Amino acid sequence: MRIREALLTPVAFADPPLLNAMGVHEPYALRSVLRLVGEDGVTGLGESYGDEAFLTQARRVAEQLTGWDVFDLPGLRRTVERVVGETVYTDLHGLTGGFSTGKTLASVYSLFEVAALDAQGRLLGRPVCDLLGGRARDEVEFSAYLFYKYGAHLGAEADDWGEVLTPEALVGEARHMLDTYGFRSLKLKGGVLPPAQETEGIRALAAAFPGHPLRIDPNGAWKPGTAIEVARALDGVLEYLEDPTPGIAGMARVAEEAGMPLATNMCVVRFEDLEPAIRAKAVGVVLSDHHFWGGLRDTQALSVLCRSFGIGLSMHSNSHLGISLAAMVHVAAATPHLSYACDTHWPWKETDVIVPGALEFRDGAVRVPDGPGLGVELDEDALARAHEDYLRCGLRKRDDASYMRRYVGSFQPNTERW
Amino acid sequence: MRIREALLTPVAFADPPLLNAMGVHEPYALRSVLRLVGEDGVTGLGESYGDEAFLTQARRVAEQLTGWDVFDLPGLRRTVERVVGETVYTDLHGLTGGFSTGKTLASVYSLFEVAALDAQGRLLGRPVCDLLGGRARDEVEFSAYLFYKYGAHLGAEADDWGEVLTPEALVGEARHMLDTYGFRSLKLKGGVLPPAQETEGIRALAAAFPGHPLRIDPNGAWKPGTAIEVARALDGVLEYLEDPTPGIAGMARVAEEAGMPLATNMCVVRFEDLEPAIRAKAVGVVLSDHHFWGGLRDTQALSVLCRSFGIGLSMHSNSHLGISLAAMVHVAAATPHLSYACDTHWPWKETDVIVPGALEFRDGAVRVPDGPGLGVELDEDALARAHEDYLRCGLRKRDDASYMRRYVGSFQPNTERW
Repeated sequence: MRIREALLTPVAFADPPLLNAMGVHEPYALRSVLRLVGEDGVTGLGESYGDEAFLTQARRVAEQLTGWDVFDLPGLRRTVERVVGETVYTDLHGLTGGFSTGKTLASVYSLFEVAALDAQGRLLGRPVCDLLGGRARDEVEFSAYLFYKYGAHLGAEADDWGEVLTPEALVGEARHMLDTYGFRSLKLKGGVLPPAQETEGIRALAAAFPGHPLRIDPNGAWKPGTAIEVARALDGVLEYLEDPTPGIAGMARVAEEAGMPLATNMCVVRFEDLEPAIRAKAVGVVLSDHHFWGGLRDTQALSVLCRSFGIGLSMHSNSHLGISLAAMVHVAAATPHLSYACDTHWPWKETDVIVPGALEFRDGAVRVPDGPGLGVELDEDALARAHEDYLRCGLRKRDDASYMRRYVGSFQPNTERW
Repeated sequence: MRIREALLTPVAFADPPLLNAMGVHEPYALRSVLRLVGEDGVTGLGESYGDEAFLTQARRVAEQLTGWDVFDLPGLRRTVERVVGETVYTDLHGLTGGFSTGKTLASVYSLFEVAALDAQGRLLGRPVCDLLGGRARDEVEFSAYLFYKYGAHLGAEADDWGEVLTPEALVGEARHMLDTYGFRSLKLKGGVLPPAQETEGIRALAAAFPGHPLRIDPNGAWKPGTAIEVARALDGVLEYLEDPTPGIAGMARVAEEAGMPLATNMCVVRFEDLEPAIRAKAVGVVLSDHHFWGGLRDTQALSVLCRSFGIGLSMHSNSHLGISLAAMVHVAAATPHLSYACDTHWPWKETDVIVPGALEFRDGAVRVPDGPGLGVELDEDALARAHEDYLRCGLRKRDDASYMRRYVGSFQPNTERW
């Protein structure tokens, strides 16, 4: 199937004021939606970042794809390499580690690879997971992604979740999320409050939800010594401790002392990072993310690599819409070595660009759609509205820190702060 | 597509008296041919080992596959695990390293995975390489696989190749092979003559075929000290030195001193072997082989793993027929990180079970077939003849050493002999 046109649409959707080590989520999250339209009318869908710097590269690739055969993924890779060249895509939040040419190429490639696999699946009448080796599981489990948060965006009314800055409020947030989605694992985005307070938050969750695996991710907000203290305090409580401190050397120091595995989506973000991390014994769990690991097929290769070295695999999430969730579900379904429930920001959004109903949470898990391709359909009206929101909101790149300074004038990112 | 029946046919084909560290090839090489017949009549082809111990396990799996959907590869893996259990398949030649449950499961699974992918491709009207991520190359380069050999099987007339035990005869063999197939790389199976003589053989090849990359594979026939001496003597002459000595520790010792990369298909034969080999810096090139690395998809994952650790990838070969060559060509075509020309025993056989014409060597390379699936068709008459040869030849497992003892009564395998 040859491509007639590749349409890239930036979109925005409302996002609550969720806190992290870099600041606070702005009122809108940005994404890009890709439609690969074939000469025969079959369309493949992709979704990725919405930052202008990413869109610029993706647009330049999209312009080159007329006449491209969606089965020619090596050809896509060559096009991406030629167009993107040495360009390095950077973001301001840095929540997925460092930047590099390789990570930029992998990120841009991924957007188009997912859409190509969707198109392949639609053309062949098979779900994407079948093109990835078949379903190792019929449903994919996700964790409740808990955040400390402000009660309202600047100048806006309080949202339904309200302010969450105490252990009690955190338990309330978790309860609401578990009641609605049935999640069986809990993940707390940390790096926001002093470590002792976040430790108390975890303890409160452990007491309120016994038997539910727990994780905390301070995005490198702690010094290695602090991380070791928290690891000791929460020994037997956490299933893993995610990016407690920045860098492979620091992580290795913490790993030596910690009773639980250390997880990362910050110090291992490219295949090249694995050798130094493995030699240093720095990580026990890698959080994959097809958006920057080079697509669905490379995410599967990452899984085999992790299995070979006795490293667990979990899955990272940025704020995303239904096309990304479908891609996450398909790759997770077709990846036998996936050791933990995956992350998702899904509960924090209220709108989408896909026709509702294809992806439902039941007991914290999403059933793999049976339809061809990703198994989700674009809602053209919803896409138009989300694009209008993008145009209207004025945001062109995610910048949690600057927005945070409008709440707290002196704010600096909490990286290795404590 | 659900399977109506899985037909497994052992076959034999004439093989010349090729020498290696374990002895000499018997008059017939054994293989198994698998036909997965779908309810709709579509058939998927697979090919693997023909030893009785392997056939027994494969037959037990085949019996379980009625009603199985060829897209359900995870289901296949579960069936193989259930049926094979803790059984360890062993062979007598040991030319692909140690034995284990994991390697047994991977080998049995591979036979069926290839046939399933062939069936998928036929059903979807796409070549297998398209199901593996698309063709990174249109043709796959192979090396000339040179052997020292006797002139004739016991009690038989001399074959066309004649005796090859001197540098001059080796150059003659290579010239004939290059003239016929156009190979651009040369590999010598060593471990047969004392290392100084094999070094002379390599020097003669280098002089006769300047600009042709050269390798030697003594299958662990040398002690580490000897291997270091040969590595020094052939520095700048070999593109890589394959399994000069057994085991990761010995290889690591040689690797420290050798100027060229060390390659292996003996000390790294499972994903679990990679961690110790990489920690020890024992190997610079892994020779993949889908027959024991768990099929085409896992071979691709191995490639990503090797790329991540800066390890080159080449491809190993046992004596094989056209179905295996087609599988090798498709996986090699869809694997971007493949650093060297692949091995093949192809020139040493005279018959096949596939319809001729689909796989042709031109300038040492095979063009990826464009047809659906593997792109080769079974020749039912040829299969029947090869099965008759199997029944008639009486061989049930490959045993190069026992056959060698009929030439040289006192023969012992040359493992770490020199």
